[in-house]
Amino acid sequence: MEKTKPRILAGFMELDPEDQISMNLMVDIIKGNFERFGFSPLDTVGIELSEILLAKAGGETEKQIYRFNKGDTDLALRFDLTVPLARYIAMRQSFLTFPFKRYQIGKVYRGERPKKGRFREFYQADIDIVCSPNLDIMYDSEICSVIYNIFKQLGVNDFTILISNRKILSGFLEALNEKDKIVEIFRIVDKVKKIGEEGVREELQGLEINGTNIEQIISFIKLNGPKERVFAEIEALNITELEFTKGVCELKSVVNGVELLGVPGDNYKIDFSIARGLDYYTGTIYETMLDDYPEFGSVCSGGRYDDLASHYTDKKFPGVGVSIGVTRLFDAFKKNNLINESGQKTTAKIVIIPIDNKTDLGAGFEFVTLLRANDINSEVFLADVKLKAKLDYANKISVPYIGIIGEDETKNKTVSLKNMKTGEQTTLPIVDAVNYIKHEITSGIKKPFVEMIKK
Amino acid sequence: MEKTKPRILAGFMELDPEDQISMNLMVDIIKGNFERFGFSPLDTVGIELSEILLAKAGGETEKQIYRFNKGDTDLALRFDLTVPLARYIAMRQSFLTFPFKRYQIGKVYRGERPKKGRFREFYQADIDIVCSPNLDIMYDSEICSVIYNIFKQLGVNDFTILISNRKILSGFLEALNEKDKIVEIFRIVDKVKKIGEEGVREELQGLEINGTNIEQIISFIKLNGPKERVFAEIEALNITELEFTKGVCELKSVVNGVELLGVPGDNYKIDFSIARGLDYYTGTIYETMLDDYPEFGSVCSGGRYDDLASHYTDKKFPGVGVSIGVTRLFDAFKKNNLINESGQKTTAKIVIIPIDNKTDLGAGFEFVTLLRANDINSEVFLADVKLKAKLDYANKISVPYIGIIGEDETKNKTVSLKNMKTGEQTTLPIVDAVNYIKHEITSGIKKPFVEMIKK
Repeated sequence: MEKTKPRILAGFMELDPEDQISMNLMVDIIKGNFERFGFSPLDTVGIELSEILLAKAGGETEKQIYRFNKGDTDLALRFDLTVPLARYIAMRQSFLTFPFKRYQIGKVYRGERPKKGRFREFYQADIDIVCSPNLDIMYDSEICSVIYNIFKQLGVNDFTILISNRKILSGFLEALNEKDKIVEIFRIVDKVKKIGEEGVREELQGLEINGTNIEQIISFIKLNGPKERVFAEIEALNITELEFTKGVCELKSVVNGVELLGVPGDNYKIDFSIARGLDYYTGTIYETMLDDYPEFGSVCSGGRYDDLASHYTDKKFPGVGVSIGVTRLFDAFKKNNLINESGQKTTAKIVIIPIDNKTDLGAGFEFVTLLRANDINSEVFLADVKLKAKLDYANKISVPYIGIIGEDETKNKTVSLKNMKTGEQTTLPIVDAVNYIKHEITSGIKKPFVEMIKK
Repeated sequence: MEKTKPRILAGFMELDPEDQISMNLMVDIIKGNFERFGFSPLDTVGIELSEILLAKAGGETEKQIYRFNKGDTDLALRFDLTVPLARYIAMRQSFLTFPFKRYQIGKVYRGERPKKGRFREFYQADIDIVCSPNLDIMYDSEICSVIYNIFKQLGVNDFTILISNRKILSGFLEALNEKDKIVEIFRIVDKVKKIGEEGVREELQGLEINGTNIEQIISFIKLNGPKERVFAEIEALNITELEFTKGVCELKSVVNGVELLGVPGDNYKIDFSIARGLDYYTGTIYETMLDDYPEFGSVCSGGRYDDLASHYTDKKFPGVGVSIGVTRLFDAFKKNNLINESGQKTTAKIVIIPIDNKTDLGAGFEFVTLLRANDINSEVFLADVKLKAKLDYANKISVPYIGIIGEDETKNKTVSLKNMKTGEQTTLPIVDAVNYIKHEITSGIKKPFVEMIKK
């Protein structure tokens, strides 16, 4: 028979068992924190009407979207989790309780040209808090606290959540009489980490902004640091534009809440250079940088928007949220060898090896049933092959323990446990063996998911 | 602005928060059992080359598949998790350890005409054990044990795993000299639960099979029940065809293993009426029926196949596996009101309500931080609205506890806890309150996921 070459598309991630186990661990940490903060799960459909997904989008999104017809219907795969959330809320507004706090972790699709660190199919992990007609500014602080807790629990200690407020930058530009160029200026400022101060200056010159204003913009976006200093410098600007003072007031509230929620000063700072490319943010904006790995870019970004679902409903739904590009972040951790890998290719903690399948299988099954009843992931090696092949299997999948059951063990209802890391071996009654393994699993010091190498 | 009507496609499931929480609970039970049996997670790509997905398929699959072009590439969405597994194993055979035990829970797509209980986008939960060049028959028993443990833990007590072996039916048909019509006969027999004995008789007549053989086939497929009786009746047939005796021998081993693994006689039986429509099964086959809900159809089916990846590689990979149609099963449980719903629209166990946002928010944050540090899902209601509106929110999301923090509580570092079910209220120091909630959560008797109503 002719064979089809087995392969997948470029820009799609598919993992080996050991990496998939790591990936799931990372997702579980993210999900656990979302739930710990009281966010509810949502799982929107993967295929939507193109009309829905493209109600707002344009430009890049429209080019990247996977769009196709099934019968007469014009369909598309979701390219983010925000548009589906907006549609979901507009659709179900009368059944939902507000503020509606939801998380969603799911695959999204963007048919961009694949390049390093970019994927066409990738997981996003989003949280949003949406209310109507108003959403209290304190929820913006809570988002920050979620980010802090996630990265802390992942084991990334040195990270900084950058916080700004779009109103401040736009109020500042109003004061400079550059209001009509706001969108373009935001877009240029947003690139400062890539193109540097000089690059920003050049691009601003391209907009025909006068030199004084350019220098003022540049010194403004260089403002960053602890709140006392930043707020003092901001006040020294003596700007009275309503947009500006409103933004400052919001930012003060957010920072105040962030502190009350216990986010240490080392892990956040105000930074006016962040602007977020997307034009729907209207207040607080966040980016998250890993201190020693600026090349990762922002690993968790988002912000406040005034009107989430305007394309589907007249009712106003302001919200605030952030998104983690899970696939991309995992890939970056992995490529930089930062993941504390167990090396295990199995979810099992122990593989039971019957020496003689004819006589020892029953005892093996009895032991495994007891292990499983005690919530210990475990398996019996069932193939009737030579002992060496059985041991090879356990070695190859890097299972932490094996339990050998031969004639004596079967007779005495015992098992010979071997710790595969230390090589220690001990024979125990099966009940004691279960307790031993249980104790070992729960008492061991857990390494963090990643161990960042200081640079 | 003109609005796009927010809607989703027919045949796509999207849940309200309380149902999504239930759905996740069901998926967690399935996943937990997969891992408890030592299966490793796999997450294959959602979009594949059509050439890959259709290497084997034809007929119905080709009509139902979501297929489209992106640039010059002919793509399709996966319609099951078996074909991607075959492709994955063929691709990565040199990196994998065999027997390879993997689970995958993911969405698949079939563009069929939507009807009751049928979805176009749905979750499948699959396990397979694959080896090369041989896979021990005992793994077929293990699959049965996984099914048993899942349905037991879901709370479905009265279910029966039907076990058969394709070789027995084909050996039997060989003995009747009907070997050339095997595929058609399988397909007819497979419909017996739908069309009944008379229907099968009529369709077999349509194949021009003689009356004696038809009656023999019908009385054969009516054979079912506990192993002793079935094996006795089978032996009484005195069939010597190798295929037949091989099948009987396999079935005996499987049933023997199933017993050793502790699956009670009430929850499985041999049943020769199951044949599975798919033609790739070559040995053991399984279906799972809910005793009081035969209208659900088989809720977990699968079997043994000799050669999984033949379209992608010359190497032979026999395997055995089963699949649960998660979305469909959840929908059936839900429509029959069988799910023990908590009614909670939130993952939070407690909502903290500061009476005065100006003065009590700090104490609220302190308490919530302590709760979260103790792994208790919790939130502070942050909007600065009237107390009644705050309490309304807690009521609407059906959170089990609220913690009210006013002037006294803030001063004394206490919280007034209220059990929202019983109405009981008590004021405790915040540390004691955390321990109290922790105890309540862990000590309560957990209701099973479903409570089946006997019919």
